[in-house]
Amino acid sequence: MKNNSSLAVGIIAEYNPFHDGHAYHIKKAKEMTQADYCIVAMSGDFVQRGGPAIYDKYTRTAMALSCGADLVIELPSVFASSSAEDFAACGIALLNNLGVVGSVCFGSECGNVEKLSGIASILATEPPVYTKELRRELKKGATFPQARNRALISCGILNEDEASILASPNNILGIEYCKALYRQKSPMTPVTISRKGYGYHDTSLAPEGFSSATGIRKAIHENPDILMQMESSLIQVPDPVKQMMSQGFPVFPDDFSALLNTTLLKLDCEGIPFEKYADVSEELAARLLRQLPDYLPFEEKINQLKTKQYTYTRISRALLHIALGVTTQQVVLGRNAGYAPYARILGFKKTSAGLMGEIKKRGSIPLITKTADARLILSGAAWSMLRQDFYCSHIYQTIVQDNYQIKMKNEFTHSVVIL
Amino acid sequence: MKNNSSLAVGIIAEYNPFHDGHAYHIKKAKEMTQADYCIVAMSGDFVQRGGPAIYDKYTRTAMALSCGADLVIELPSVFASSSAEDFAACGIALLNNLGVVGSVCFGSECGNVEKLSGIASILATEPPVYTKELRRELKKGATFPQARNRALISCGILNEDEASILASPNNILGIEYCKALYRQKSPMTPVTISRKGYGYHDTSLAPEGFSSATGIRKAIHENPDILMQMESSLIQVPDPVKQMMSQGFPVFPDDFSALLNTTLLKLDCEGIPFEKYADVSEELAARLLRQLPDYLPFEEKINQLKTKQYTYTRISRALLHIALGVTTQQVVLGRNAGYAPYARILGFKKTSAGLMGEIKKRGSIPLITKTADARLILSGAAWSMLRQDFYCSHIYQTIVQDNYQIKMKNEFTHSVVIL
Repeated sequence: MKNNSSLAVGIIAEYNPFHDGHAYHIKKAKEMTQADYCIVAMSGDFVQRGGPAIYDKYTRTAMALSCGADLVIELPSVFASSSAEDFAACGIALLNNLGVVGSVCFGSECGNVEKLSGIASILATEPPVYTKELRRELKKGATFPQARNRALISCGILNEDEASILASPNNILGIEYCKALYRQKSPMTPVTISRKGYGYHDTSLAPEGFSSATGIRKAIHENPDILMQMESSLIQVPDPVKQMMSQGFPVFPDDFSALLNTTLLKLDCEGIPFEKYADVSEELAARLLRQLPDYLPFEEKINQLKTKQYTYTRISRALLHIALGVTTQQVVLGRNAGYAPYARILGFKKTSAGLMGEIKKRGSIPLITKTADARLILSGAAWSMLRQDFYCSHIYQTIVQDNYQIKMKNEFTHSVVIL
Repeated sequence: MKNNSSLAVGIIAEYNPFHDGHAYHIKKAKEMTQADYCIVAMSGDFVQRGGPAIYDKYTRTAMALSCGADLVIELPSVFASSSAEDFAACGIALLNNLGVVGSVCFGSECGNVEKLSGIASILATEPPVYTKELRRELKKGATFPQARNRALISCGILNEDEASILASPNNILGIEYCKALYRQKSPMTPVTISRKGYGYHDTSLAPEGFSSATGIRKAIHENPDILMQMESSLIQVPDPVKQMMSQGFPVFPDDFSALLNTTLLKLDCEGIPFEKYADVSEELAARLLRQLPDYLPFEEKINQLKTKQYTYTRISRALLHIALGVTTQQVVLGRNAGYAPYARILGFKKTSAGLMGEIKKRGSIPLITKTADARLILSGAAWSMLRQDFYCSHIYQTIVQDNYQIKMKNEFTHSVVIL
């Protein structure tokens, strides 16, 4: 059997939804690393921007498996909707703990892994030459990003022309992956490919493929069938997956408006402070309390609370944590448990039996395939994290079924997706 | 100024929705008692059968005021969705504490107040002659209703032909009102009028008027505008009220399905036992837990849980208490606070200024007209009960706004209805 470096390449993703850019990413990752398998650590039913995934995790798993992925495991929900730093740390820990992943491949705007990795090493270790310069620049009145860029330049990591690297969303996430690799002393190698097509924040559809997920979600809002019309040489959606996608979906943040608003009312009525929940500052809690009895749809509420200090995503994440009951304490427990104390399998290809065998042999965390058995396998923080994953998905399933009058399987009756 | 006996007649009602039978009731109550005013103690946004009211409390208040009522006060929510005994005790306490109500008028199938009052006196005081006979009959294997009837006959309160009195829903409620009058040593006199038209449980519409509320709710489900087409000589809906009714309503139990299901999931995830909530037995809690991750609409869930032992209404009430967070402890606190430690005014007629003045003079509980001031006026159990009323209405308003994409005023911005 091959050693890690060529057995599997890992990808950390949300696939919200899966599109041709993702299919290209998987294809390229395998090519570049010569790996036999591609393992995806994917967010479950809620994603990093602080909202529900547009399609449930089983549908998204099926799409990924039908377009090149060999195994999909679930990113624990506590970190799937966390800050980029925690999200990345969890994804890296999860892939690392499997014991079979030789490299982690991510997209970035700059496409230069040495550059990203170099920046990450400085940010992860904070050597005196960096911190001294950072402090000096901040004292001079620079903003934090300005000061950080100057400090990186004075470390010899960036030149003047490269100062914009830290302004691009996929570079930032890539640096976080590299930071996590450093901090966790992981033997996995970072690999990056240049993002093609439209930018991360573009909301229009790219006519020749490679639209952004943001753009596709917007298009789906207007025409739920659009994803099935987007097949290309890279992405062919098999019929069973098409059927999954045509059953009453897609899901949007405003589907969770009543959950959010009634939860806020309930917490207030029971005297539970909003600050208990992850990413909810005292100032944000006070503002939420002031507008408490005024119903607003989820997205309107975010927009109303958004300030220069608090971005849309930050607010969105805080509100999602309140709605789902994700507390700061849970986040801390999860970090202390090493971010990923189990690997919940969402789906795999029939052809990856060899991979599964190797993970069982070399991995350092329990593999969860049958959810009903999980409480026999896990305990402590691990069981409480997985229970929260089940809970988040049950909430998602409840809301979807309530909105679309369809029937869905739950976490104990849905089986692993096998393609 | 008149004494109580002729100043005001009290009615305890839900008006779910208000219909011509209710208008007839108010008219007759005033005629029979020669009272100057009719005061209605009305359920808020949730009703005794354990579900939401079909129209919000302000709309129902406006309908009652436009058809003969002079003042509408809100039945505290903890008891509005309680058993018949607690519901009646709260209604009687509320009217009694106003200090101006001389008589309480209710509809009944038998129409004989002496008979109902006689039964109530025995049930409220349980004299030895009654309890001895009751026990003897139960030992012989009679069901509880059979044994109770035999015991009442042996007390000389019923004759053989009258045994069916305790089988009719409005007689039962009437007896509860009379029991509460006894127990609370209230000087108010019970008065009853015979129910006309269709029975309580009829679900078809009476062609000549006097349909049951159940029948009207069913008809509204099929055609939301039907109530406005039902005007008669007794019921004329003024234009502002029509406008209130046309804004996206009506509301049905299934609108609260997601709230119920997500609350059950959340309680389980946080390890809070369902038995904490009013009317939830351990057995019911265990059955709820078994089907936890399976989403069901509210009414289907009730039907699934219904047994010979647990009626539809009993289950419905238990589920509503879970959804709204009404605990057994809250019910006990409310009882200990005398059921009605404040009077929240929902609306009044401009012509009832004199009545309001008398209530301020003779009443024994604070009148709440401006909700924003309430926390300065109330404390302890009273404030916690009123806070729960606000909370229940905010939940109702949230769900209605979420379902119908309309804007509603909240408990702090909605003013008292004045017609």
